Amino acid sequence: MQIGVIGYNKSSSIQIRQTTLSLAYEVGKNIAKRNAILISGGLGGVMESSCKGAKDQGGFTIGIIPHEDFSQANDYCDAVICTGIGMSRDFIVANSSDGIISVGGGVGTLIELCVGYMTKKPMVAIKNSGGVSDIYGGKFLDERNRILIETRKDPVSAVEYILSKTRTRSSF
Amino acid sequence: MQIGVIGYNKSSSIQIRQTTLSLAYEVGKNIAKRNAILISGGLGGVMESSCKGAKDQGGFTIGIIPHEDFSQANDYCDAVICTGIGMSRDFIVANSSDGIISVGGGVGTLIELCVGYMTKKPMVAIKNSGGVSDIYGGKFLDERNRILIETRKDPVSAVEYILSKTRTRSSF
Amino acid sequence: MQIGVIGYNKSSSIQIRQTTLSLAYEVGKNIAKRNAILISGGLGGVMESSCKGAKDQGGFTIGIIPHEDFSQANDYCDAVICTGIGMSRDFIVANSSDGIISVGGGVGTLIELCVGYMTKKPMVAIKNSGGVSDIYGGKFLDERNRILIETRKDPVSAVEYILSKTRTRSSF
Amino acid sequence: MQIGVIGYNKSSSIQIRQTTLSLAYEVGKNIAKRNAILISGGLGGVMESSCKGAKDQGGFTIGIIPHEDFSQANDYCDAVICTGIGMSRDFIVANSSDGIISVGGGVGTLIELCVGYMTKKPMVAIKNSGGVSDIYGGKFLDERNRILIETRKDPVSAVEYILSKTRTRSSF
Repeated sequence: MQIGVIGYNKSSSIQIRQTTLSLAYEVGKNIAKRNAILISGGLGGVMESSCKGAKDQGGFTIGIIPHEDFSQANDYCDAVICTGIGMSRDFIVANSSDGIISVGGGVGTLIELCVGYMTKKPMVAIKNSGGVSDIYGGKFLDERNRILIETRKDPVSAVEYILSKTRTRSSF
Repeated sequence: MQIGVIGYNKSSSIQIRQTTLSLAYEVGKNIAKRNAILISGGLGGVMESSCKGAKDQGGFTIGIIPHEDFSQANDYCDAVICTGIGMSRDFIVANSSDGIISVGGGVGTLIELCVGYMTKKPMVAIKNSGGVSDIYGGKFLDERNRILIETRKDPVSAVEYILSKTRTRSSF
Repeated sequence: MQIGVIGYNKSSSIQIRQTTLSLAYEVGKNIAKRNAILISGGLGGVMESSCKGAKDQGGFTIGIIPHEDFSQANDYCDAVICTGIGMSRDFIVANSSDGIISVGGGVGTLIELCVGYMTKKPMVAIKNSGGVSDIYGGKFLDERNRILIETRKDPVSAVEYILSKTRTRSSF
Repeated sequence: MQIGVIGYNKSSSIQIRQTTLSLAYEVGKNIAKRNAILISGGLGGVMESSCKGAKDQGGFTIGIIPHEDFSQANDYCDAVICTGIGMSRDFIVANSSDGIISVGGGVGTLIELCVGYMTKKPMVAIKNSGGVSDIYGGKFLDERNRILIETRKDPVSAVEYILSKTRTRSSF
């Protein structure tokens, strides 16, 4: 089982709230607790906090980064996928996740939600984590109503929701 | 100057209104009238209608398709870019456009709007063309308010808006 | 018809011979003479010289660049495809060519030959243009002998060879 | 540390020798023994055998597949990266490897060697494993002589060679 965590990157243009980073940390921790692999974009902010949470719980983390070399990955990635394809690696993050949990996030996070929506992945936005998680949580992204972006208040139930919906893929 | 036209693909899951296809056709025609190159995803529906409009006006059209061979492009592409990278070619469609006009569209179109938003491209959604053009037109896609998706009722003023905002890139 | 021209980029690590650049220029000119669209990687060196040759003959050129914005393309591209996917755009250059002509070139050019070989595109290496064109021209790239990289001394017969092999794809 | 294993995919067009598959298995086993993560293209043939070898030794394997969903990965991948970008995922396999070991292989394997060569990754081709490993092993891929593709007779010394050259990247 591979669960994607998506959300804000560290950036000069926005200050991520500490509560958002804590939520990301808890999401990562709970993914590890449930023995799932944590997939992320491998950079800072929400990605880094969730990876750290997973590592503190003994989990395994994979960072799928835009760059062609390893140096930009955060320190809590057990494995790094150096895509070299820039921001379009967002597609790979979503495609490589059995389910997706969003914590805050800007338009890059929205792209990952779109890809998940397109392929009908189970997705949960953490309530009150800010950004696109609050803007698009509880909604369908287009008129085809393919799959609802669920919302959950807490990381534990977010992870449970994903697990409850992804029992189908057997071996991973 | 390269102007992207994005919107519904032909699909069994949704019936595109004839008025939407007519709007796409007129957008293509007006892009050609103003001597801009029409960029699109090269497939059916809005992409095909806009390419046909441009060709009927003697314009030049480029279709950037998901596939690695030429066979899936619509018949009105003067040149076909066979990306072979699947749906992540949406990034290339948006990146290769100086400005973007959306006509209807589902979540794939939303991804292209997101990429344009991320890179602050001028973007116009045609009013009453349905889909994500009506849902997201007039809005910012995230809390950073990077660039507004403008709305215009008619193809002529949509093309004029894009041209008015893209005088900066000189040579193309 | 879309013909790819591949070869050396301008670079500090190697001095491209003037005769190689002249060959590239002539290849471009002859592609334009035969009303084919010239596809290239859109940067300097062989790419730039071939584009200039095509433009001097009134042809149409498309540069498929690694970058996500237009600024790095050479000045002789009528249209620029901003892939944003870095060096893996080599796949798109080869996939978007009905046939490929190589002039000199390093390992990036070899990758494009490999992609053409994989998909059995007609390919010609210009003799005495240096680099991988001379190393791999006249050879099969693996033991499956999928398609021979032909060699021709002069640009005219190189273009003729490609045209003779690509009559099949009708409309472009 | 992430070590890439590249080589033949299972295919109807070529029969892979059992000795080649055994070499791949041993390479995988030795990568696991040395606690490195095995990176591969995630499909059949050499990729599958090397993953199986690593798993039998208790190692960790990542398959970076062309497809956008999980179903095509071989059964011995602990994690699957669903790129959805087709064959250009070869770039990601090579970029995500600190060093690369090739076992047999066709032109796709050659592309991965080219990418490793371009970025000066340590690379070893296993002698007498067939295909491009024997054709290009012991050679430079272009005239710039960036990095030699080393050759080794046995999987143990191949893995040792890679490890000896990749002490630099610390944390992974």
